[in-house]
Amino acid sequence: MKNNVIKNITNKTLGILGGGQLGKMIAIEASRLGIKTCIFDPNKNSPAFQNANIIINSDYTNKKALRQFVKCSDKITYEFENIPLESLNFLEKNSQIFPGIKALKYSQDRLLEKEFISNLGISVAPFYQIKNYVDVKGALEKLKGTAILKTRKFGYDGKGQHTIKRYRIPNIKNNIEKNKYIIEGIIKFKKEISVIVVIKKDGSAICYEPSENKHINGILRETAFPAKISIKTKNKAKAIAVKLARSLNIIGIIAIEMFVDKSNEIIVNEVAPRPHNSGHWTMDACNVSQFEALVRVIFDMPIPNIKYYHNCKMINILGENYNVLEKSLYKKNHKVYIYGKDKIKEDRKLGHINILF
Amino acid sequence: MKNNVIKNITNKTLGILGGGQLGKMIAIEASRLGIKTCIFDPNKNSPAFQNANIIINSDYTNKKALRQFVKCSDKITYEFENIPLESLNFLEKNSQIFPGIKALKYSQDRLLEKEFISNLGISVAPFYQIKNYVDVKGALEKLKGTAILKTRKFGYDGKGQHTIKRYRIPNIKNNIEKNKYIIEGIIKFKKEISVIVVIKKDGSAICYEPSENKHINGILRETAFPAKISIKTKNKAKAIAVKLARSLNIIGIIAIEMFVDKSNEIIVNEVAPRPHNSGHWTMDACNVSQFEALVRVIFDMPIPNIKYYHNCKMINILGENYNVLEKSLYKKNHKVYIYGKDKIKEDRKLGHINILF
Repeated sequence: MKNNVIKNITNKTLGILGGGQLGKMIAIEASRLGIKTCIFDPNKNSPAFQNANIIINSDYTNKKALRQFVKCSDKITYEFENIPLESLNFLEKNSQIFPGIKALKYSQDRLLEKEFISNLGISVAPFYQIKNYVDVKGALEKLKGTAILKTRKFGYDGKGQHTIKRYRIPNIKNNIEKNKYIIEGIIKFKKEISVIVVIKKDGSAICYEPSENKHINGILRETAFPAKISIKTKNKAKAIAVKLARSLNIIGIIAIEMFVDKSNEIIVNEVAPRPHNSGHWTMDACNVSQFEALVRVIFDMPIPNIKYYHNCKMINILGENYNVLEKSLYKKNHKVYIYGKDKIKEDRKLGHINILF
Repeated sequence: MKNNVIKNITNKTLGILGGGQLGKMIAIEASRLGIKTCIFDPNKNSPAFQNANIIINSDYTNKKALRQFVKCSDKITYEFENIPLESLNFLEKNSQIFPGIKALKYSQDRLLEKEFISNLGISVAPFYQIKNYVDVKGALEKLKGTAILKTRKFGYDGKGQHTIKRYRIPNIKNNIEKNKYIIEGIIKFKKEISVIVVIKKDGSAICYEPSENKHINGILRETAFPAKISIKTKNKAKAIAVKLARSLNIIGIIAIEMFVDKSNEIIVNEVAPRPHNSGHWTMDACNVSQFEALVRVIFDMPIPNIKYYHNCKMINILGENYNVLEKSLYKKNHKVYIYGKDKIKEDRKLGHINILF
């Protein structure tokens, strides 16, 4: 060993694109391991700025700022998908970006994502490309009148989505003309689960056990670990997740949201090549959190086997249930995280609670 | 409750005097609870600066910097004792300092500390004030030739200490004339333990269970939780710790190092009115760490009962055993903390490992 690991992390800086809560939690874990951080975000009130060594407060397309970012950072990662590919290509020419760009290209576009996944022989919801308003009608016929119309790009937390029931198309004709949409069939699922996969530089995979999600209006509200599904289904989900991670050339971390239907078939819903809200339970229930695992891969540190200390229920705190925090602070098995955002708004993720059992 | 707690922490900033590892760990816990930090340290490479919102890089006596610090900080705490009392008095006039100044006054001066503690009827090692070289000889007679000569002020990690055996006085005659010293008898102890006490604003006390310490050359090397002493001795140690904390008007946290002798008598060795190295095990073994407890008291947040999830052995990483980190990173029950100091030096605390059982 001869202290190679230590050499890899001494006086090193991790560049993080995005200063939201995920960036903040990556930064804290990096800092705990003695790694400095340089955080890039256009919003001057970014939560992660409070845990940064160097702050770059600029638009993602600003070449001068990107150059400064590369100069400050030994390695680069990102905390969200919607970073312009042009900027990422520029950064990749001058540095190393984890977990890579290929996955980002697909996860930035629901149509490309769905095509890529189904081409691997992995099930996804039935989907149709929507180029114009007429396409919606055609697709709805095939989907028997019930579907979700989604923007191909820039959607998150249910934003840019319209649920259609009984052929009732929402009044978005003008938007359809302007934007590129996709329409998806609605899966009748028994469970929503997430699997988080870590791929190391030597290609070996570490797969966290599946957790179980509860969404309301497209926003994750709760994640429970472990998922209440059979071991067989767990193994199937993990195998799909690892296959998908490898196909996307991940080096670092990826979260894969899946549905389990009544016949225990797995249908992949979304992928996120970064730490994910549905993996926050790993912060207190495991020996190595998703954030620490990412930092360890990036800086060539070993990752021991994952040890599960507790069962956990993670509850997201949004503007509408912000007062839950108050009660939680009195509870001895609640671990409270408050992101320190500048404004409390409905549907905005402001914190989370890990309840340990 | 009515969201009073949440109001107390929204858009608040904690000012921290000192940017070492303790300041860093306080800052991370504050940040996790959504509280911003302003960190004051004369050293531009301070580890805590990487987790600060606002950095004040100045000498502790600079009035302009102190004024800026007060302006940025809603509440103030400190991570080490040797901050000039004059600066603290200035800050106290304009802000609130936790855990208070009284304890600092005593812990800055070994003679005042020992007098204060023994006046409470709590046992300390026999001690004598040393004003000049002749006093050393007189005290040594009383202590039968074996003692520790210590500077009254500015000592830490064994610095400023000379062990005397068989009346052999070290060659420090000139220093004695210049400095103020104290001489202490050497306690024949069975165990060294630490007790960490949290006193809330309503006066109620929370006392962590005692842990057991191993020092070499005056530097803490290991702390094991729980201490292997009887419940009766634990209760005695905790009662002494709480009494001492209350007498020192602590509001926040204090660590008390004690000896247990062969008749299970408790002798107080040192007090530190701040989070302490011997309490790092609380970061992974408990529901609420010493750092979180301090932040919660300062910002009027409740503290639930302490829950002990694991036994723990904390190992300090110093320049001389820095390579232990390497092996630790492979172990699934080791939690590694690297402070990110600018230089690796012998006898310098560079990180710690919490081994969980």
